[in-house]
Amino acid sequence: MIKADVFPTIDDKTAREEGTVFAPNFDAHGLLPVIVTSAATGEVLMFAFMNAKALALSLETGEAHYWSRSRESLWRKGETSGNRQRIVEMRTDCDQDALWLKVEMTGSGACCHTGRKSCFYRVVTPGKDESAAPSLVLVDAERQFDPKAVYGHAPAAKRNLKTS
Amino acid sequence: MIKADVFPTIDDKTAREEGTVFAPNFDAHGLLPVIVTSAATGEVLMFAFMNAKALALSLETGEAHYWSRSRESLWRKGETSGNRQRIVEMRTDCDQDALWLKVEMTGSGACCHTGRKSCFYRVVTPGKDESAAPSLVLVDAERQFDPKAVYGHAPAAKRNLKTS
Repeated sequence: MIKADVFPTIDDKTAREEGTVFAPNFDAHGLLPVIVTSAATGEVLMFAFMNAKALALSLETGEAHYWSRSRESLWRKGETSGNRQRIVEMRTDCDQDALWLKVEMTGSGACCHTGRKSCFYRVVTPGKDESAAPSLVLVDAERQFDPKAVYGHAPAAKRNLKTS
Repeated sequence: MIKADVFPTIDDKTAREEGTVFAPNFDAHGLLPVIVTSAATGEVLMFAFMNAKALALSLETGEAHYWSRSRESLWRKGETSGNRQRIVEMRTDCDQDALWLKVEMTGSGACCHTGRKSCFYRVVTPGKDESAAPSLVLVDAERQFDPKAVYGHAPAAKRNLKTS
């Protein structure tokens, strides 16, 4: 197993940006933002965070693991819903403080806990005149599964957590 | 102008996830993570943060503005490099705590301060055996511009900042 504490740190800017050493730059909370897209369609599916353990497990198993900030726990994507993510490609950015995962969904193919393929099912639409607030327009919002059937009628406190 | 303080907050989970009111859920630091993709190719170009002011300016002008955490200042993308971003579409996610921007690049078309089209020009590649650390492989790493020519030979302290 790749141990969570094996990730090196790089202080030199050029080495971090141009080099081939993977040195993920976790934030003050020990987290790394992760962009997840569909390897098949290119669509952005979700946004989440990994800590070092989640990243190590993702690399080791080839399946996406995250850190749930609301539950404060490691989260194997699809643990409850069966909609898991096989990592097809993982990239890092110039300063190595973000990741981009291209994934293949298993199960129903829905990534979002609301039952949609993607969490990004609403477009921010400017108001009709300058003073008006923007609103949201639903797009690609068909549900692939019924969240109640998958997650059950959880108590209110639990319903505030993302569990997909 | 859309004032930064006009964004409402929504406490009800169903209203936040299913409704049409745009109520961006800024984090404890007043920031919102932003995924930026190319409207033309679908490629992920960069990852950044917006505060309320940057979001209001982005909506008002149709050009991407961010909050630079390293410089602690508002950052109009392309201010220095001329590689600006025209927002083609803005989406928010289920719990409204992240944004996805589809943009059209102006200027050289390069988004990254290193001169590349995308900041994600390196693939994280697993080690050859289980105990080996992953390394980075450069892909799509051709420079579209010479960063030294664009940003000049800035002093070391300034070179640590992303200025694109």
